[in-house]
Amino acid sequence: MKIGILGTGIVGNTIGTKLIQLGYDVKMGSRSATNEKAAAWVKANGQKASQGTFADAASFGEIIFLCTKGDATLDIVRQAGAENFSGKAVIDISNPLDFSKGMPPSLFISNTNSLAEETQKLIPDAHIVKTLNIVNCEVMVDATKCGGEATMFVCGNNADAKSVVRTILAQFGWKDIIDLGDITNARGTEMMLPVWVRTWAALQNAYFAFKIVRKFD
Amino acid sequence: MKIGILGTGIVGNTIGTKLIQLGYDVKMGSRSATNEKAAAWVKANGQKASQGTFADAASFGEIIFLCTKGDATLDIVRQAGAENFSGKAVIDISNPLDFSKGMPPSLFISNTNSLAEETQKLIPDAHIVKTLNIVNCEVMVDATKCGGEATMFVCGNNADAKSVVRTILAQFGWKDIIDLGDITNARGTEMMLPVWVRTWAALQNAYFAFKIVRKFD
Repeated sequence: MKIGILGTGIVGNTIGTKLIQLGYDVKMGSRSATNEKAAAWVKANGQKASQGTFADAASFGEIIFLCTKGDATLDIVRQAGAENFSGKAVIDISNPLDFSKGMPPSLFISNTNSLAEETQKLIPDAHIVKTLNIVNCEVMVDATKCGGEATMFVCGNNADAKSVVRTILAQFGWKDIIDLGDITNARGTEMMLPVWVRTWAALQNAYFAFKIVRKFD
Repeated sequence: MKIGILGTGIVGNTIGTKLIQLGYDVKMGSRSATNEKAAAWVKANGQKASQGTFADAASFGEIIFLCTKGDATLDIVRQAGAENFSGKAVIDISNPLDFSKGMPPSLFISNTNSLAEETQKLIPDAHIVKTLNIVNCEVMVDATKCGGEATMFVCGNNADAKSVVRTILAQFGWKDIIDLGDITNARGTEMMLPVWVRTWAALQNAYFAFKIVRKFD
């Protein structure tokens, strides 16, 4: 299966590498078709890895990962072309972090709206699934790296897309997945970032995740 | 030790009853000194239980629990009299939930501020510790009710007050306590409420809590 990744940062790199290891064909998209970071990633990941523009990667992927910085997400999705997302599962990992006022970051969209909802509005024919945004990228692709069994949330408007995403999450080692419902639930999971950042600072350790401990399943 | 509780709702009632069981003297405060709900609680809890106005309860307590609805917290703290909080550990459980726009609730303060910080500004000589606000009240007083070992966050500006609060949390069954730092960290824990509400709706079960699963302690 073909997967497009938008973003050449540490998140896109880590997700892309894991997907190659799992046997997927992966195209990493960036502003230019010859981006150096994407080229280095392709070189390191062999024949199933390729690169292109954001539009190339979105067009290529049967599934698309948004691994963009939150403040660039909407612009990049526009650049990639709405038509290239239609009918596809789009896994949104980006967070609306605002570093402009210093550390710790605040959120530039929150509470009564979410970045995932704004992205969904831009590409209404896409099936956005918000997930993985509440852990470090190394934990995203190997859930055991947090040292135990944690919980991953998914939300989105399309059940089939969530099912596809659950399969990939399982390949990443996530066993306890809670479906919160439609895409508006991204408000809740994006608003976990402030406590994530503060917990990271308190523990001085990014290898953690949230487990929903519960009495009845 | 004497504890004052502000609020006669389910949270104040549950916390107060547990504290009586633990051997504390507890005065429940409300708008009137003869509030019927407080009177019923006193009747059910014996000689170590008493009632009074908000000011009576705050004055009585060596430690004070704010078990108020979020939108009433600041008004009630004003009514109770700033001088009655001075130098005391004040455990803030209240959340800035805004139900005015329907369900699920949003927050009326968040992101770059928190209800705990606004309360701290009203009573600058008090030592506010934000904690317990991220679980159902039955889980607050008996951490095992979530069915496993979960994590409780504390934050506040005064280390001695946090130490006092940790002792009470331990009596409530909390074994894994993470100190996030100063009171501004309440932004993070108050912003967990949206995902709490959505998880509650998804699980149809309030007996859950958040565990920070981590590799290194």
